[in-house]
Amino acid sequence: MKNRYSVILGNLGNTCDRFLSSGYKEVLPKPEMIRKAAAIPGIEGIELVGTWDITESNAREIKADLDAVGLACVSIIPDLFSQKRWGLGSLSAKSADTRRQALEECRTVSRTAMEIGCPLINLWLGQDGYDYPLTADYRSQRGWLTENIATIAAEFPDLRYALEYKPKEPRNFSFQARAADTLLMACETALPNVGVCIDVGHAFMAGENVAESAVLLQHHGEKLFHMHFNDNYRSWDDDMIVGSVHLVEYLELLFWLAETGYSGWYSMDQYPYREDGAAAVCESVALLRSLEELLTPERRGQLRDLIVQGDATRSTRWMRELLFGSRLLPA
Amino acid sequence: MKNRYSVILGNLGNTCDRFLSSGYKEVLPKPEMIRKAAAIPGIEGIELVGTWDITESNAREIKADLDAVGLACVSIIPDLFSQKRWGLGSLSAKSADTRRQALEECRTVSRTAMEIGCPLINLWLGQDGYDYPLTADYRSQRGWLTENIATIAAEFPDLRYALEYKPKEPRNFSFQARAADTLLMACETALPNVGVCIDVGHAFMAGENVAESAVLLQHHGEKLFHMHFNDNYRSWDDDMIVGSVHLVEYLELLFWLAETGYSGWYSMDQYPYREDGAAAVCESVALLRSLEELLTPERRGQLRDLIVQGDATRSTRWMRELLFGSRLLPA
Amino acid sequence: MKNRYSVILGNLGNTCDRFLSSGYKEVLPKPEMIRKAAAIPGIEGIELVGTWDITESNAREIKADLDAVGLACVSIIPDLFSQKRWGLGSLSAKSADTRRQALEECRTVSRTAMEIGCPLINLWLGQDGYDYPLTADYRSQRGWLTENIATIAAEFPDLRYALEYKPKEPRNFSFQARAADTLLMACETALPNVGVCIDVGHAFMAGENVAESAVLLQHHGEKLFHMHFNDNYRSWDDDMIVGSVHLVEYLELLFWLAETGYSGWYSMDQYPYREDGAAAVCESVALLRSLEELLTPERRGQLRDLIVQGDATRSTRWMRELLFGSRLLPA
Amino acid sequence: MKNRYSVILGNLGNTCDRFLSSGYKEVLPKPEMIRKAAAIPGIEGIELVGTWDITESNAREIKADLDAVGLACVSIIPDLFSQKRWGLGSLSAKSADTRRQALEECRTVSRTAMEIGCPLINLWLGQDGYDYPLTADYRSQRGWLTENIATIAAEFPDLRYALEYKPKEPRNFSFQARAADTLLMACETALPNVGVCIDVGHAFMAGENVAESAVLLQHHGEKLFHMHFNDNYRSWDDDMIVGSVHLVEYLELLFWLAETGYSGWYSMDQYPYREDGAAAVCESVALLRSLEELLTPERRGQLRDLIVQGDATRSTRWMRELLFGSRLLPA
Repeated sequence: MKNRYSVILGNLGNTCDRFLSSGYKEVLPKPEMIRKAAAIPGIEGIELVGTWDITESNAREIKADLDAVGLACVSIIPDLFSQKRWGLGSLSAKSADTRRQALEECRTVSRTAMEIGCPLINLWLGQDGYDYPLTADYRSQRGWLTENIATIAAEFPDLRYALEYKPKEPRNFSFQARAADTLLMACETALPNVGVCIDVGHAFMAGENVAESAVLLQHHGEKLFHMHFNDNYRSWDDDMIVGSVHLVEYLELLFWLAETGYSGWYSMDQYPYREDGAAAVCESVALLRSLEELLTPERRGQLRDLIVQGDATRSTRWMRELLFGSRLLPA
Repeated sequence: MKNRYSVILGNLGNTCDRFLSSGYKEVLPKPEMIRKAAAIPGIEGIELVGTWDITESNAREIKADLDAVGLACVSIIPDLFSQKRWGLGSLSAKSADTRRQALEECRTVSRTAMEIGCPLINLWLGQDGYDYPLTADYRSQRGWLTENIATIAAEFPDLRYALEYKPKEPRNFSFQARAADTLLMACETALPNVGVCIDVGHAFMAGENVAESAVLLQHHGEKLFHMHFNDNYRSWDDDMIVGSVHLVEYLELLFWLAETGYSGWYSMDQYPYREDGAAAVCESVALLRSLEELLTPERRGQLRDLIVQGDATRSTRWMRELLFGSRLLPA
Repeated sequence: MKNRYSVILGNLGNTCDRFLSSGYKEVLPKPEMIRKAAAIPGIEGIELVGTWDITESNAREIKADLDAVGLACVSIIPDLFSQKRWGLGSLSAKSADTRRQALEECRTVSRTAMEIGCPLINLWLGQDGYDYPLTADYRSQRGWLTENIATIAAEFPDLRYALEYKPKEPRNFSFQARAADTLLMACETALPNVGVCIDVGHAFMAGENVAESAVLLQHHGEKLFHMHFNDNYRSWDDDMIVGSVHLVEYLELLFWLAETGYSGWYSMDQYPYREDGAAAVCESVALLRSLEELLTPERRGQLRDLIVQGDATRSTRWMRELLFGSRLLPA
Repeated sequence: MKNRYSVILGNLGNTCDRFLSSGYKEVLPKPEMIRKAAAIPGIEGIELVGTWDITESNAREIKADLDAVGLACVSIIPDLFSQKRWGLGSLSAKSADTRRQALEECRTVSRTAMEIGCPLINLWLGQDGYDYPLTADYRSQRGWLTENIATIAAEFPDLRYALEYKPKEPRNFSFQARAADTLLMACETALPNVGVCIDVGHAFMAGENVAESAVLLQHHGEKLFHMHFNDNYRSWDDDMIVGSVHLVEYLELLFWLAETGYSGWYSMDQYPYREDGAAAVCESVALLRSLEELLTPERRGQLRDLIVQGDATRSTRWMRELLFGSRLLPA
């Protein structure tokens, strides 16, 4: 049973920040981005952003493009974050009209997903939060958010809805900020098709140990629906190449994902601002596959033993010997 | 309906850190500490630490000392953190024998609480966590922790158990790390007498907006059982005087505590390493009472309006005018 | 001797982030932005960004617009951050050609400043840094950066050059990251017209106590040339309204700025993503003027005494009584 | 030219924190700790803490113990942090008498170092800082600190004084907080025998890229005098086994230390709270030696090329292939 790797299509395109809003690179045509994605060793699936990448009108065309290169559509991410109308929130906005529009947008994306056979909607509600003290109604807004998620998930029982948490950005505080609060909201809907997406970088940024977060979600009814991979320096969502900063955390995460029966995709979600997107994603997949390959049944057994023992020095030594073992000369 | 203020007895005594283990101050006799606590304007209750302050053998004596100065015993905190035997965990330790000992310690403290009429056990499980990658069994250990809490709470249905979360220290990661994961565990016990304690400094350290955390806990079945107050610089549990760094967060918190019907104690939990303990606690209570007094029904109404509007500039101006309003001369 | 307040013109305009690159608001014509700035009570000066706001060709026109509303041009900020060509750095880029272009850009902006009588160039070198391990040449690149700053400052001895530090964003690490490393670079040029700009939010983000940073810079030859004001939650450059989160830090900063003879501008540098820009800036100035007004000679004397004593409780009480004193009823 | 590894003697002994002040382990006799240190493969030197480990009266005896097992005394660290009298600071204390005592303590330790042929005094001034706003005199106290360091270094020109910075703990803010501010102070003494010690964990905690900090110090007159090694999760001084969390940062650091001619010791400075001290230190040395061995002249050449190119994907791939290269099967 091998891991399945995918990538968010936009990773192959242009990337901007608040200082350089036109982006560090050139805008590429979608078909070229799809071809680039398909050429990355190991990539078998694509995530699309609603309106950016896929709409009701171009859905069949995009589906055909993906089919042509043998890529599955892994998820669609509704665009509830990159339009002025969501600036004060989408599904949790104080404006009832905005909430209604956001719900409608989710319906549209869900219909599109059904049409092309995409099984999962990834909800990253970046604008649903607040910026300043004394401005948010934590009670009502969280309530509306939960209700709206329940509404859409009940309407499309054949789709799965993954809630992707992030502590901040673009809002200073997000309503879906950490694994546990997002799980609580998923549980509150009482729907089997509502779960959580862990973005590894978001978890680092939240101060979480990401392997523990994965176990927590799986413990509460296998609520880990989806995984986004990238790396950062822990203080911010730097969206870097996987493994460029961290290593042992990814190994521990991959171990526990298998241990707890995670069967979803391993999807790359980076912002290669100044790098060639395809090369940066390729490198991330290569790191993850290296770790997957290392985690043989024998080594998994060793890890189980180490975890039972809980001896920090032994666990650290195991990892060092895995990486350097045969090369280290005697003292 | 006025807020009730209390203090952890140890705040009045000596304080040490890992470099100066004998402490920055002199060790005081308990009766003197109790007298000092009672002399702080506004303080009506005391929290005691098991074994440090109260045991089965001295319980009646301590109770008499408190009665003599008119202080209630607000909570007892079992000592599951300051003994070598808990170094690798207490209620979640991998050693079944250690877990049994920890459970027994909770029983002892619970009996003592019943005996002296103390209504709440505050469980701060500082040693229950882990330090290194590949050493903790997130699944089993979290399971044991939940079971043990359920066991003790079921045995003493007339006591309330408040779980006090903290992201790290003394372990690099705590199992009860944030409001939402701790609430999840409380809910998993399915017992009405298990809830959560917010230590404001721990919430800051966890990157939480503490008012939002309080609302979250109250929303899920009024699970906010207890409150610890102190201040810090957000990156660590500095345990400083309330209001020495933050201000608007405390005002927003006090507003929402009332708004969501919190009826527990407002308890001071500081580490006045180099300060006179009584003076430092006195100052904290004074700040909280100033805020309480400011929050008149009229101003609460204004805050409700501001929160409905959600305009950052208006909310900030309201706070500024509250503090400086009448003094600012025209431009 | 009163403080002089100014604002970066862009604060009055549109603001975008990496998710909503077209911005949360409408783009306003420059003349309207200038009128809005002039209407803010207390604002007497403007900072302009090169190419965005001012070029060699429109300099006289802009100067006339400012004169018409009685605003001084406080500084010009060369645009070394919002163009593709600076994506891998400007004055420290590995490409000699890019460094030459960046130097030329600084010359152009300096000539413009001379022409309109603007006394200060504020260098925020946001792209001069690096993102990943094993990619930056800390030695050569820091060397080029220092040389180039020395070159331009030597060519325009009648202008002052303020280096604005920031730990990260848009690069994951900046070469001018903190007060002390930036001061070291300023000192290395051995030029009297090279100094440092403190952006208060950048200092918070760097983990600095901003008042201490100001004293450090003033101690080493009065090297604090300029000040940018905004607020944040310490972990990121949220660019919020001054005083919306912090308070005592601003008071301490204003005290020490006067104490160490800072005579530059107090300039607002915010990103009011979703707020009315003029209102948000107005609120920031009002907070700072409230604090300025509070710092009477008598209170400055009290603060000097408190600092000599160094008693945390007394200092905290002084601040509390300043804010709430007359209102608190007896216990 | 091989690296020389050493360890702080206390790493082999008992360790406490503020909750468990008696420590997690047993107190060992010094001679046993010395024997344990000597038995660690690769360890050739020891650092001693004044009063804890070495005094004027036991100096010869300790020296004989070290000689007997073939260990050099690499540095002595004056105890200016673990006694009540330093609670409000040592060399920067507001009390002139305390400052005088601290200076005297430095003299005593320096004489002892001269006597036993130890070439370096490592000054970690943990108590020299402040905790609260409006309590510290940043100007005078920093001045006293600089003067006192200059005084002692001028009196003992044959010793080298390394200033070890740390952003916080035990004080909320340290006067010697980061590489650059500490370098500034070293430079201000204008003495060739005053430099800086980088503790890798302190640098992580300060948000620094530690390799860049090393280059900065070496650039300014080879001011990197000493190195302490340990690991952490970036937010706090967890004092863990080297390489248990980070990896690429250590490799980059070792590369630049050689590149910039660092010739001092590589000293382990951990707090193995719950681990066997000798085993934990042994593991740290093994990791560093693995990296040292990997950094062959050929690979150093490759790294120089990568740094010239500055391509994040290539640098990341180089590191991945170094660790996993030969094992990864083709796609």
